Amino acid sequence: MRIFGIDPGSERTGYGCVETDGRRHRLVACGAIAALQGDTFPNRLARIHAELSALLSSCRPDCVAIENLFHAANVRSALKLGHARGVAMLAAVEAGCEVVEYTPAEIKRAVVGYGRAEKLLGLTAAPSPHDAADALAVAICHLHSMAPAGIRLPAKTPRSWRQYRPPAQG
Amino acid sequence: MRIFGIDPGSERTGYGCVETDGRRHRLVACGAIAALQGDTFPNRLARIHAELSALLSSCRPDCVAIENLFHAANVRSALKLGHARGVAMLAAVEAGCEVVEYTPAEIKRAVVGYGRAEKLLGLTAAPSPHDAADALAVAICHLHSMAPAGIRLPAKTPRSWRQYRPPAQG
Repeated sequence: MRIFGIDPGSERTGYGCVETDGRRHRLVACGAIAALQGDTFPNRLARIHAELSALLSSCRPDCVAIENLFHAANVRSALKLGHARGVAMLAAVEAGCEVVEYTPAEIKRAVVGYGRAEKLLGLTAAPSPHDAADALAVAICHLHSMAPAGIRLPAKTPRSWRQYRPPAQG
Repeated sequence: MRIFGIDPGSERTGYGCVETDGRRHRLVACGAIAALQGDTFPNRLARIHAELSALLSSCRPDCVAIENLFHAANVRSALKLGHARGVAMLAAVEAGCEVVEYTPAEIKRAVVGYGRAEKLLGLTAAPSPHDAADALAVAICHLHSMAPAGIRLPAKTPRSWRQYRPPAQG
């Protein structure tokens, strides 16, 4: 099963895809889509949508996890964020993925309970950039939520996982 | 020249397309895209995007006019509105249209100065539904803004316009 996390933003949109067989989890891809200097706001949205569509087409996730925000600094920033989140959700629906949403509190709880992405995915360093790490946190939150449905997650990441290297893709 | 106005909303998205030859203006199409009962929020966005894309493809406007909102009742409604506005802007960019934005004050001024859609377009009744009329108001605002660039608009709609019947399309 593959989960694709998105941390949307009109300036930078983070993404992170995680694969799990129920026991072991591996990083498939992560990164961020940055706005181009001088691009108009509508063109920024088109770029976020096009790049996410291409990533979803290559990662082929089973579902897309996204942060459910009801709070923003102010109405103006909420509107801007809404635009980016809207085109991200659209890309997910067009890719035939179920969209699952988690509150910031749920994401925080999952990351605190099961460890950060680098711990859970056996990475030697934290995923970079920051937006990619945030997107992976949402994907990990969905992993966590599936735990009662057969996905086993250890309370503490075993030492051996840290040496776990993702298998070659394909 | 054709202008396609959009009044976005996650429940209902109004649209209205106006054609002008610089002297006479006619209604090309107007209406509203309503959310289906029981549809998920991501599916609503996909529906708005798909229907607007189909309308833009059949109306072939030169530009898309949309209200520039910086105010909303609260952060939650701003976020929701942002999603709908984001997928509407995306449809415009994908259709190769320039996106122009007007503040509510500019739209109000244009409608007060040049008359409502039914007056300007020689319609016998106000466009229906309400969302369609709002979308036409944005398109008319853009017509108004082009007045100095060669589009002639009368201060008062002449009587003859009220009898003006749009020519057959195509």
